[in-house]
Amino acid sequence: MEEIQGGITAPSGFLCSGLRAGIKKKGRDLALIYSELPSVAAGVFTSNRVKAAPVKLTCEHLKDGRARALVANSGNANACTGRKGYEDARAVSAEAARQLGLAPEEVLVFSTGVIGVFLPVSKICGKMNALVKGLGRFKSREAAEAIITTDKFPKEAALKLCIGGAEIKMGAVAKGAGMICPDLATMLCFITTDARINADALGRALRSSVDKSFNRITVDGDCSTNDSVVIIANGASGNKKVEYGSGDYKKFREALDWLTAEMARMIVSDGEGASRFVEVRVEGARSSGEAKKACFGIANSNLVKTALAGGNPNWGRIVSAAGASGARMEEEKMRVSLGDIVVMEGGAPARCDMRKVKRHLKSPVVKITVELGSGDKRCRVWTTDLTEEYVKINREYS
Amino acid sequence: MEEIQGGITAPSGFLCSGLRAGIKKKGRDLALIYSELPSVAAGVFTSNRVKAAPVKLTCEHLKDGRARALVANSGNANACTGRKGYEDARAVSAEAARQLGLAPEEVLVFSTGVIGVFLPVSKICGKMNALVKGLGRFKSREAAEAIITTDKFPKEAALKLCIGGAEIKMGAVAKGAGMICPDLATMLCFITTDARINADALGRALRSSVDKSFNRITVDGDCSTNDSVVIIANGASGNKKVEYGSGDYKKFREALDWLTAEMARMIVSDGEGASRFVEVRVEGARSSGEAKKACFGIANSNLVKTALAGGNPNWGRIVSAAGASGARMEEEKMRVSLGDIVVMEGGAPARCDMRKVKRHLKSPVVKITVELGSGDKRCRVWTTDLTEEYVKINREYS
Repeated sequence: MEEIQGGITAPSGFLCSGLRAGIKKKGRDLALIYSELPSVAAGVFTSNRVKAAPVKLTCEHLKDGRARALVANSGNANACTGRKGYEDARAVSAEAARQLGLAPEEVLVFSTGVIGVFLPVSKICGKMNALVKGLGRFKSREAAEAIITTDKFPKEAALKLCIGGAEIKMGAVAKGAGMICPDLATMLCFITTDARINADALGRALRSSVDKSFNRITVDGDCSTNDSVVIIANGASGNKKVEYGSGDYKKFREALDWLTAEMARMIVSDGEGASRFVEVRVEGARSSGEAKKACFGIANSNLVKTALAGGNPNWGRIVSAAGASGARMEEEKMRVSLGDIVVMEGGAPARCDMRKVKRHLKSPVVKITVELGSGDKRCRVWTTDLTEEYVKINREYS
Repeated sequence: MEEIQGGITAPSGFLCSGLRAGIKKKGRDLALIYSELPSVAAGVFTSNRVKAAPVKLTCEHLKDGRARALVANSGNANACTGRKGYEDARAVSAEAARQLGLAPEEVLVFSTGVIGVFLPVSKICGKMNALVKGLGRFKSREAAEAIITTDKFPKEAALKLCIGGAEIKMGAVAKGAGMICPDLATMLCFITTDARINADALGRALRSSVDKSFNRITVDGDCSTNDSVVIIANGASGNKKVEYGSGDYKKFREALDWLTAEMARMIVSDGEGASRFVEVRVEGARSSGEAKKACFGIANSNLVKTALAGGNPNWGRIVSAAGASGARMEEEKMRVSLGDIVVMEGGAPARCDMRKVKRHLKSPVVKITVELGSGDKRCRVWTTDLTEEYVKINREYS
C-alpha cells in the first residue's frame, strides 16, 4: 500500500468538478463527483434522529447498492426543511441526472451548512450545466474546496495497492472541523475506488472502517443531521472481484481503514479553534462499551479540554470525567499518564517531574492514557482542546 | 411559607463560623456549622465513580442518620488522594470532634477545590480552635464565603413556615459555579432546619428535592468527585414530629423544594463566565427518560451554548442536539420556540419575526422550548451559555 497524489480522482474512471454557486458567502460551494462506469456504492449516515432531506433521499437512492454521481453543496444543510426540503433535494438530483444522462436514482445528494433554511435550488440547478461541463481528472482539490464550511483547509488523500492481480486505487475528499463526534457529525467523506468489489462486501468494509475512524473522533460532542460517508467502486482496475471474507477483502479493508483514519485525523487537526491534537486512550475497562464511554467522557469534557488549552496538568479533571462516565474503575488500580509520564497511580498523585509533564502538554500532539484497572478492554479517541477561538467561531457562525 | 434572612443559622439552635486557613490563594476557606442539639441528618452524594475521601468518610458517618457538625474547606478537594486522603479526612473530623466535645461520627467533612493534591491537614487542624471559638448566630455569610471556589458570589437563603403547630425554619448555604451537571457536580449545599422530623422522612424529602433542583441544572456537563447535599434537623422548633407521607411531610418537602431550587438557580446564575441564564424545556417525549435525555442533550451542547452566547437564533443546532440525544421525535410534529416565539414547526422553519427572536436572545433569561411530538412526558433544565470567559477561567484554574 502506498500513498499517492490525486485525491478523489486518483482511481481510474472518476471525474469531478467544483465551483461557486453563491450559496456560501465566498468560495466554491458546489461539487460533483462522477464515475464513467456503472458502479456499486455504499454509505454510512448520521445516527441523529433528525435527518436532513438529502440524507433521506440518498439513503433511498442507495437501496439498490448502485450510484454513478454525487452532488454536494456547502453553505446550506437542507435540514429541518420539511417536505419542501425533500422535494428540493429531489430537484437537485433530477437536474444532475438529466444533465449527466443518468436515472435520478443514480445520483446521490449531500448538503452541509446552516440548518433550517430552504435550499437555494435555482442557484444550484442554474450551475449544474457548468458543473457537468467542468468535470475533469485533476480537479479533486476543487471538489474538496467546494464541500468545506468552517474548515481551515480542504481534505483529500489517495492510495494504491495490489489486489487480485491488479493495481487498485482509492481516493477521498472530506469536510469537517467542528461538531465532530461519535457516530459522525457534520462531516462528509466521499471515497472512490476503481476496485471491482461485491456491493455487500463494500458496505461491510465501509461500516467497519467508519467505526474505527470517524466514530472515534470528537471535537465538541455534537452530532449533526447531515453526516455521510459514501464509497463508490467502479471496477475500472479489472482486478479479480473482491468477495466478503477473502484475503483480498482483508487487504481492501485495511487500505480503507488507513484512508478513513487519515481523513479522520485531518478533520480533528482542523478542529474549530483547536490548538492541540489530543489522543485519549482508555485501558483496563470491564467491557468495550465502558472503555468507549470513559474515553468519550474524557474527550468530551469541557473541563479537560480547557485545561489542555491552557497546558494545565490538571489530571484530576481527567479522573473526574472518567468517573462521571459511569464506567467501572478500581481507584487503587487506576493509573493516568500524560505522554509517557505517570501522573497518578493507585488512586493518588504519583511522584513525577511536573516540568516534563508541562512540556508534553505544550507539544502539538498530547497523549492521555487512563488505566481503569477493572478489565482488559480498551478504546482510543482523537479530539482537540477547547479554546476561546472555538467559542468565537461558533458564536458567530450562522 | 415566607423567605427570611439569616441563611444557614436562621433556624434555631444552629451556629456557624468561617475563616481563612490559607488553603486557597485568598479569602476564607474553612467553615464550621454546628447544631446545639442532637440532630438527625441525611445526604445525597456524587454519582461519580471516583468519590473524594471526605465523601467516603461522610457517608460512613451518616449511616446512623445522625450528625451535629459539618466542617468544609475550599481550595483542595482531597480527591484522588488514596488511603492518605481518607486518613486526612478522618484527622479533620477527629480534631473537630475533640474541640466540640462530640464523637468523630457526629462530624461530617467536606472538601472542594483542586483534585489530586494532599489536604493541608495541619493548616486546617491548626485553625480548628479559632473556628470553634468563632461559632455564632449571625455568621451564615462567613460560612457561605468559606466554601466557594470560582463562584462570583456566596449563596445563602432561608425560609419559615408553620408545621405541626409550630413555626419552623430552614436555611442553606451552597457553593458551585462550573462543573454543574445532572447528578450534582462540584457543588456543596448544606441545609439546616429546626423542624422535628423522622430521619427516614428527612432523607426521602431531600432525595426528592435534589432530583428536582440540583439534578436539573447543568453548566458544562461535568460531574465532580465531591458533590454533596446534606441536611441537618435539630427539632428545636418543637413541632409535632413530621412523619413520612403526612400532610406536614408534604408541606416540609414543598418548602425544601423551594429552598433547593433557589440554591440551584443561584448556582446556574453564577455559571462560570456565563452571560445568560437559560431554561430548556422539552415536551411531548415518549418517556420521562427521553425527555431528560433530550433536555440535557440541548443544555449540554457546546454548539447551542456558543450560539446563545452570540445571541444567534440558530435553532437548527437545538434540533440537531435533541436529535443526537437519541430521544424519539416525529419531525412533522416537532416545534421549537425561543421565548414565546415559534421558530420551527412541523419540521420546517416557521414564519416569525426574527428581530423579536433576536431581542429575546439578548435578554438575561433565555427560554428554549422543544416539543418532540411523540408522547406526553416533559423535563425542564437550567443552564447557561458558553463564553470565551468560561474557557479563560477553566484554562487557568488549577
